[in-house]
Amino acid sequence: MSDIAKMAGVSLSSVSRALGGSSLVPEPQRQRILDLAEAHGYSVNQAARNLRLRTTETIGLVLPMGHETGQKVTDPFLLELIGNLSEEVFHRGYDMLMSKNPAPRTGWLKSLVQSHRFDAMLVLGQSDQHDNINALAANYAPMVVWGERLPHQAYCSVGVDNALGGTLATEHLLSRGRRQILFLGPAQVPEVASRLRGYVEALTDFGLPPKPNQIIDAHFTYESAYETVCALLASRRKFDAIFAASDVIAVAAITALTKTGRRVPEDVAVCGFDDVAMARTMAPSLTTVRQDLRMGAQLMVDLLFRRMNGEKTTSAVIPASLIERAST
Amino acid sequence: MSDIAKMAGVSLSSVSRALGGSSLVPEPQRQRILDLAEAHGYSVNQAARNLRLRTTETIGLVLPMGHETGQKVTDPFLLELIGNLSEEVFHRGYDMLMSKNPAPRTGWLKSLVQSHRFDAMLVLGQSDQHDNINALAANYAPMVVWGERLPHQAYCSVGVDNALGGTLATEHLLSRGRRQILFLGPAQVPEVASRLRGYVEALTDFGLPPKPNQIIDAHFTYESAYETVCALLASRRKFDAIFAASDVIAVAAITALTKTGRRVPEDVAVCGFDDVAMARTMAPSLTTVRQDLRMGAQLMVDLLFRRMNGEKTTSAVIPASLIERAST
Repeated sequence: MSDIAKMAGVSLSSVSRALGGSSLVPEPQRQRILDLAEAHGYSVNQAARNLRLRTTETIGLVLPMGHETGQKVTDPFLLELIGNLSEEVFHRGYDMLMSKNPAPRTGWLKSLVQSHRFDAMLVLGQSDQHDNINALAANYAPMVVWGERLPHQAYCSVGVDNALGGTLATEHLLSRGRRQILFLGPAQVPEVASRLRGYVEALTDFGLPPKPNQIIDAHFTYESAYETVCALLASRRKFDAIFAASDVIAVAAITALTKTGRRVPEDVAVCGFDDVAMARTMAPSLTTVRQDLRMGAQLMVDLLFRRMNGEKTTSAVIPASLIERAST
Repeated sequence: MSDIAKMAGVSLSSVSRALGGSSLVPEPQRQRILDLAEAHGYSVNQAARNLRLRTTETIGLVLPMGHETGQKVTDPFLLELIGNLSEEVFHRGYDMLMSKNPAPRTGWLKSLVQSHRFDAMLVLGQSDQHDNINALAANYAPMVVWGERLPHQAYCSVGVDNALGGTLATEHLLSRGRRQILFLGPAQVPEVASRLRGYVEALTDFGLPPKPNQIIDAHFTYESAYETVCALLASRRKFDAIFAASDVIAVAAITALTKTGRRVPEDVAVCGFDDVAMARTMAPSLTTVRQDLRMGAQLMVDLLFRRMNGEKTTSAVIPASLIERAST
């Protein structure tokens, strides 16, 4: 490396910076150094360099899937969140290391952090890992979690106001004259539990507290949700509306309903949650509770970089808004 | 580490394997080693370990964006391809390192490989980087590229039969009685150039060789494509069909057409390319050329792992199929 410094007529540290891709070296000088290095067969082992500098210029993106091993990264909501987060990370000149854990065991998060392959970590959803994340947060600051704000939470989270979203959806269905409103979703997921709470509160305030059999366990995957709604229809249960805990569940419900001759919204009104891209363009277009993922991703990555710089940051809750469309 | 081996009553290499996450150590023994390591404050620096073993258990995913700096990872087609590839990679116990290069310069791919942060590399699209990829392929085997098969190609690629797809779309529009069919897309992208070739061949075979002004430059981003179609409509050009080089361009075209009072398909039939999830559910549902991304992702990752094991593999071209829906 000192040969290259001599040939380029610059300091050793300039060579080191230029080969490491630093923007501190002015462009013509940087290119000269790179050309000389290339010509003399010199290359940087970035992994070795990262190890020495304790920096990776990489952000970790972790998907805990303890709650739902069937949910894939091809899920439209996850994909849109990942896409928006990637853009924010790339925009800052960082790469993104994605890791999915279908069966998290104690200590997995800590092991991941100790792998030294990223400078900071985004976690997508709490799944059933709240305690693990809390334990890690005591000793690991550069972390932001997408999800619900939970009691005794030691980490920084960003998420939509899920309870309010549940209330907005349910009040909207009530305002459309619906009185037999079912809730469909995996209530063991913290975000869904809050959507359910908003639903229960809205119905109770209206004088129609829901019966236990109105609350139906459904998974986030299309195929599974479709089966659930088909079984429901076969059981001849009466209902005039569905509040689905995700747009994917709502799309599955609408498909099952129309295939068996029910009209949406005339016979059954359907409201989703998320506002994925498909919600606007589908037929009938889907009434849903919007999670603004672009804003959410900006917030998450902004908070993460502030935490990397040693700032303490608080959690953020972004607004939920009802988007009225043709399905209700 | 030898202390832990003694306490656990196992060999040093078992401890090393267990801490490295190897599945070669039986589960009860593995957990005992991890518990002892945890209790004695021992942890593995995975980056240091990877450096020593020259393995990262990570696959690189590279997005060259030389052709189109405006295209974001939030693009539905890119997201679906990334989602399917991620699933295949996660399924094999690997993580995925994503890197986007909005302004690739000479040597960037080589630098990325030399960063030693992944064991093998997937490249999404050739963009304008065919020569760079070819140059790398001479010395770097574990690489598979999504894209068009090109003349003098030294690397392994997987992609759909784009020329056939272009022909299928155009013949379909002709069979619907359309005679003034426009092509919309960025023809400098190799895959799009082949779709255009299929379009030109189909029209020529039909005795209607296209005039140059029927071939319209349009970008892959929704906003840009929307502007292009609006300008086209304002110019009072006559046409009765559009073959769009991507579903995103087709959706933008349909929006622009219906906003200005044209009916789809009565006044203008629209055919897309890709078959993203939204194509099936939108109104009107979109006729399009399907790229089977699940099959494509399986093939890419399968070929990649075979190449990591030293196998030579040839490129693959997967079939294109026309999906007829309401927009034509």
